[in-house]
Amino acid sequence: MYRSKEVRIGVVGATGAVGEVLLRLLEERDFPVSELRPLASGRSAGSTVPFRGEAIEVGVARPESFEGLDVVFFAATGELSLELAPEVARRGGIAIDKSNTWRMDGSVPLVVPEVNPEAVDQHSGIIACPNCTTIGCVMALEPIRRAAGLKSAVVTTLQAVSGAGRDGLEELQAQQVALANGEQSEPDLFAAPIANNVIPLCESFRDDGYSTEEVKLLFETRKIMRLPDLDVAMTCVRVPVPVGHSIAMLIETERPLDPAKARAALSAFPGVEVIDDPARAHFPTPADVEGRDAVLVGRVRRDLGSDRLWLWSVSDNLRKGAATNAVQVAELLIERGHIG
Amino acid sequence: MYRSKEVRIGVVGATGAVGEVLLRLLEERDFPVSELRPLASGRSAGSTVPFRGEAIEVGVARPESFEGLDVVFFAATGELSLELAPEVARRGGIAIDKSNTWRMDGSVPLVVPEVNPEAVDQHSGIIACPNCTTIGCVMALEPIRRAAGLKSAVVTTLQAVSGAGRDGLEELQAQQVALANGEQSEPDLFAAPIANNVIPLCESFRDDGYSTEEVKLLFETRKIMRLPDLDVAMTCVRVPVPVGHSIAMLIETERPLDPAKARAALSAFPGVEVIDDPARAHFPTPADVEGRDAVLVGRVRRDLGSDRLWLWSVSDNLRKGAATNAVQVAELLIERGHIG
Repeated sequence: MYRSKEVRIGVVGATGAVGEVLLRLLEERDFPVSELRPLASGRSAGSTVPFRGEAIEVGVARPESFEGLDVVFFAATGELSLELAPEVARRGGIAIDKSNTWRMDGSVPLVVPEVNPEAVDQHSGIIACPNCTTIGCVMALEPIRRAAGLKSAVVTTLQAVSGAGRDGLEELQAQQVALANGEQSEPDLFAAPIANNVIPLCESFRDDGYSTEEVKLLFETRKIMRLPDLDVAMTCVRVPVPVGHSIAMLIETERPLDPAKARAALSAFPGVEVIDDPARAHFPTPADVEGRDAVLVGRVRRDLGSDRLWLWSVSDNLRKGAATNAVQVAELLIERGHIG
Repeated sequence: MYRSKEVRIGVVGATGAVGEVLLRLLEERDFPVSELRPLASGRSAGSTVPFRGEAIEVGVARPESFEGLDVVFFAATGELSLELAPEVARRGGIAIDKSNTWRMDGSVPLVVPEVNPEAVDQHSGIIACPNCTTIGCVMALEPIRRAAGLKSAVVTTLQAVSGAGRDGLEELQAQQVALANGEQSEPDLFAAPIANNVIPLCESFRDDGYSTEEVKLLFETRKIMRLPDLDVAMTCVRVPVPVGHSIAMLIETERPLDPAKARAALSAFPGVEVIDDPARAHFPTPADVEGRDAVLVGRVRRDLGSDRLWLWSVSDNLRKGAATNAVQVAELLIERGHIG
């Protein structure tokens, strides 16, 4: 597809949970990398990361590091993105940012390639990727919208600890080991114990009692789908799962949509796979999606008291929820002539 | 309160997860037991259970075992309840059944003592206790209904493995040990691995794609609340938590209800405790409720796009979800003059 292009790539946060998956994806998808500069904040600089059989030294993420790069992925803190993404743009490159920093900026496209690919054409050097939860949500909502219009959704998420990065994974594992040894370990990153527990808080609370994660889900979904008044009601919950965000969603469509037709619309949508056979107890779970790029959807059924549709979607929050979406955006930039 | 009464008690399923908690509750609540007959199906008969410092032998659950008993708790299989609860009634006793068998029978009261205590007066020798999930649901819905009327609810549950009994607990633990040793263990009771995973199926699927658990939640809620047309939409999910069912609920009231007033109504309701302080990241989790009788409610907030209210309720599925509710029904029978 893009064999003739060669792209000089930077990865800020190359040693983090998402950065690591991102490097694997560039290899797996045979992305035309002519140069790779892994970058990180001071703490991780100097270590190495493996890429195509070589150990590549991690440089310090600072403005001069971006000279000559076509695309720089940001998979680090929001502060780094805020400071450094404009430095990429200033040098003629394109920053593809995974953090929350730029998503709601009016001049920055917020892109899920299967849903709103044309949005990349409006970029001014920075393109934002949505929150991992939003991606799983819009990937299931968009096929339904195209088939029958969309009036509202009620969403409850069950989110994996790796959505909070490597620290989240380590906190779950440490608590599981402690429990197995009959010990208690104090919560640190999360506001309550996460092993053998669930926590109705992802990120932090705003003054109105909503979590920042919940509000992202609403506003990002509206922006990506270009439905500024879409009614999305949501509760986001952290669950003791390493990888894989699950979402239970009740969708009100503009026109009634038969579950069989909903399944067909979902199956036909790129990046979505339907696993839905109650007779055999087949449905997607986080264990099924880990390491995969597809968003898995099941349990499609009509509400017992209305024409609304329930569904259950599961996605790998480190892949389609993060690294895969970012690499797909870079592929889209090549396809649409923005790079090379 | 009921000091003057002395009650002869049977417990069918005395060696199970709920039966064990039930015996502890009879002790803790100083229930006036003049005789205790622990009973079980053939497999467990002959073992002993501790009660008030003695080891009491477990008898075989059969019709003659109920002679002379005032109240028999059933915390075993639905098949045993179907066969044996009428035998209790025939002998002049009252069966308090935790199984699904009798709940929707028109001649059997389905009782949550805080919600519909008067229903016990209609008993004909059998009283049913609701599903553990339904109890957590109606305990939160009833105060809201009394404050502002109730139009509909959208419910997503995150249910502990002990909701499936001791086998559920053991399956989670065995899989956690296997994972810690780098091994895989095959699911048996549950339809997918439950350690480090979530499963959007509780019990089994019906032909319409709903789980039996989900449908129970709808019909039991309607019966207990005497709202035969109440619209409840629901998805039930199993999570890797030993004890404690959580529910995220979006409630449409007949009249708008301010979150502060909703919290006040919930706090004033017997058996409900509000833990809800976003500024301090205080909210209930399963770890907070294990071993407690109260239903804990938090995250009360208005939907961002409507007058609906979100809340999050957590209850110990073995206590208020099962054993506590059953013992409360027995206490109610004494209070209202049905025993003694």
